[in-house]
Amino acid sequence: MVDFTPVATNIVDELAAIVGSANVSTGESELDLHSHDQSFHAPHRPEVIVWANDAQQVADVLKLANERRIPVTPWGVGSSLEGNPIPLHGGILLSLRNMNKILKVHADDFQVTVQPGLPYKDMNKDLSRHGLFFPPDPGANATIGGMLANNAAGIRTVKYGASKDNVLALQVALADGRLIRTGSRSIKQSAGYNLTQLFVGSEGTLGVITEATLKLSPIPEFSSTMIAAFPTVEQAIEAVVSVKGSGVDVAALEFLDTPASQTLVSRGVDIEPNPTLLMEVHNAHPESQEADVATVREICEGLGAASFVAIVDNTKAQAVWQARHKAYETLVQMFPTMKFHVMDVAVPISAYPEIIAFVQQQIMAGGVMAFLVGHAGDGNIHVTMPWQDEKSLASVKAMNSDIIHKAIELGGTATGEHGVGIGKAPYMADEHGAGLDVMRELKQTLDPHGILNPGKIFPTL
Amino acid sequence: MVDFTPVATNIVDELAAIVGSANVSTGESELDLHSHDQSFHAPHRPEVIVWANDAQQVADVLKLANERRIPVTPWGVGSSLEGNPIPLHGGILLSLRNMNKILKVHADDFQVTVQPGLPYKDMNKDLSRHGLFFPPDPGANATIGGMLANNAAGIRTVKYGASKDNVLALQVALADGRLIRTGSRSIKQSAGYNLTQLFVGSEGTLGVITEATLKLSPIPEFSSTMIAAFPTVEQAIEAVVSVKGSGVDVAALEFLDTPASQTLVSRGVDIEPNPTLLMEVHNAHPESQEADVATVREICEGLGAASFVAIVDNTKAQAVWQARHKAYETLVQMFPTMKFHVMDVAVPISAYPEIIAFVQQQIMAGGVMAFLVGHAGDGNIHVTMPWQDEKSLASVKAMNSDIIHKAIELGGTATGEHGVGIGKAPYMADEHGAGLDVMRELKQTLDPHGILNPGKIFPTL
Repeated sequence: MVDFTPVATNIVDELAAIVGSANVSTGESELDLHSHDQSFHAPHRPEVIVWANDAQQVADVLKLANERRIPVTPWGVGSSLEGNPIPLHGGILLSLRNMNKILKVHADDFQVTVQPGLPYKDMNKDLSRHGLFFPPDPGANATIGGMLANNAAGIRTVKYGASKDNVLALQVALADGRLIRTGSRSIKQSAGYNLTQLFVGSEGTLGVITEATLKLSPIPEFSSTMIAAFPTVEQAIEAVVSVKGSGVDVAALEFLDTPASQTLVSRGVDIEPNPTLLMEVHNAHPESQEADVATVREICEGLGAASFVAIVDNTKAQAVWQARHKAYETLVQMFPTMKFHVMDVAVPISAYPEIIAFVQQQIMAGGVMAFLVGHAGDGNIHVTMPWQDEKSLASVKAMNSDIIHKAIELGGTATGEHGVGIGKAPYMADEHGAGLDVMRELKQTLDPHGILNPGKIFPTL
Repeated sequence: MVDFTPVATNIVDELAAIVGSANVSTGESELDLHSHDQSFHAPHRPEVIVWANDAQQVADVLKLANERRIPVTPWGVGSSLEGNPIPLHGGILLSLRNMNKILKVHADDFQVTVQPGLPYKDMNKDLSRHGLFFPPDPGANATIGGMLANNAAGIRTVKYGASKDNVLALQVALADGRLIRTGSRSIKQSAGYNLTQLFVGSEGTLGVITEATLKLSPIPEFSSTMIAAFPTVEQAIEAVVSVKGSGVDVAALEFLDTPASQTLVSRGVDIEPNPTLLMEVHNAHPESQEADVATVREICEGLGAASFVAIVDNTKAQAVWQARHKAYETLVQMFPTMKFHVMDVAVPISAYPEIIAFVQQQIMAGGVMAFLVGHAGDGNIHVTMPWQDEKSLASVKAMNSDIIHKAIELGGTATGEHGVGIGKAPYMADEHGAGLDVMRELKQTLDPHGILNPGKIFPTL
């Protein structure tokens, strides 16, 4: 472990000289606000908050921190779920909040160039007048920088890909204060190493994203939402695999078990609590829309769906998806005395029935409460488990660990979209084997003093 | 420049001990066969050819070469177009030809795990019985290893992405003889650095791919080929931008200028030589197929197309695409005394009219013969120019250089799909700026003695 330098007053002054004194704070309430994300991981305060206003300021802060051996943790809005932006070793919390502008809309190219602190829902609202949107949709109003650093995904990944699939070019500040550009605005490129993809998903441990050019998609002309309820989880999961294999290019394919479907009911969605599939198709023509809905209906009904509803009214459909997005908040409201741990694993779609069966066994054996919500079309499952005290947290963690090992054994991953952060670091050796050594070597090359978001991704020895 | 060790007899013996003496050759004809690719770049012989039979043999060869400081150049079938597999510094030519098996078809997951020496057309023939195919389609029957190392793309990238977009996991042998695995079979993954994408496109300079798990797509139920002829290049290019912006998800959108369209005519395609767009749509339903064709027809006719033909008969359509794929061979047959230089640049689609106009000005000003063929839907253009002697090659190279600089200036890239190899290395500093230094640092980390495909990607000083 590197010995980091404490942030003394003179360093605060030097930071203020870079970003302006109004953009530096050591106030207690600010330190507390930036000490935790949305996860169960223990909070840890930074020593100072710095709000950067442009890429050069980010680079200058990193250069200073690198020379003085001070940890730097980049921060979007703190909506992560694995402790990714918790400043575990104190030091500088580098907030990108003020770098929240759309720099240029390249409407003809279906592209936009933005600063990293821009929340994606705000961006999509603005882009709607061009008939375009950025498809990755994690739910919370995460920033673009945070989404890229984490490779966030969400419910529309099954059709449009994750954040990594929707980015063309970056500007990145490196630990030593260099500012580099990666990629280009050309869709096709084979000009050397793919630095863009090296920084995407690196959770701020290799550099800080200061600008991004994103790929956008046209807002679909026709969109249908479908809700299918099944008598058993097994039938619902069978339908997931069948719909995925049918050739219908679903834009969302979500699974909720009976307890989780309560979160929809309590938000006014007119269904009975049941193992439920929530689906969406995006089409360019009404004919293909009808054909897609008919195919999905046939599969679901053929596999024993108790009910199947197709919604074309946009307002009604939005209400359903809003309820889905708010599932976590709904649980928090339903059980106000509880805290929640959201697990995130993903497997190949053919192994989805097996991981779901395994999770159900675990829940039954543990006699615990759990809510299964999954981006099923991607083989991604979130098991949300309430806990109240150290003891119940310990059993939740044990179950989490078993489920992760099972996912890796099935050819999957410890994390489909929440990133590694603190919570998944212990599983990286199991998932990557000798590949983890290569990741360490890359980290050592680009951040030799280990100042960038220390304590994340790599298991501490 | 590193001082490499010559391959003496004892080293040939040690290589034979690894792969078997039947899989090592220093024969003149073999050395010649492996001294050049399909480009104009000067041939250079290796000192020895080694045919590896499995991943461990690849790793053992690299370990030996690394310890003795011997260059190793990986080889698929030598179909590259920028000198990528020419063993510039001699040493070991590591052929993956014998590692050409499909290891496992994961049909339910639309995935396949293969060895790197497998030619993609052979693989797709085999996969057709599962109703699946690997969409990247560079034309020549390249190997999967070569396609990934180069991030090859081709005519269907506009819908399905390039090689990089269709790979999930790799096994890679590193310079020091380690064998690592990257990625997983999960579609969603955010578990640390994206090593898969670091090796894809690295042209064998960071490691040798020994196994790959690819994403497959279902063979489309309905496919239509469309041919539109325009009075002028400008109108054809205007149609490219309009079709791309229309929301129709074209599976191919190819441009040929009048001289290039002759290559179709001479292969029996029933058209008049004209600026021509060759297009394809893939649909799940006949209704959407009809609607897509109608939309494309309306755009082309609205922009003054002299003719528009839609072909649904699969045999006729295959003949057209076969003619398109053979464009280069046709030119070689049409001008048997000439050699050809194929340029490859790509720009954002909004800049496509400008790069095409620039290329036309260059051709006019130079008074030279040229054939424009472009994967227009991706903003990718190939200018094919004949040459006969050093003098005409010099003017072709000068024009190539001007076009590359223009493409970079327009926010594009020096190479959309042919890779850097030897030919594009001089432009990497211009394209990447300080990012090129980071690429060098990564190269130094993973291949400290510079044994892996030396002389490629990085400009030599």
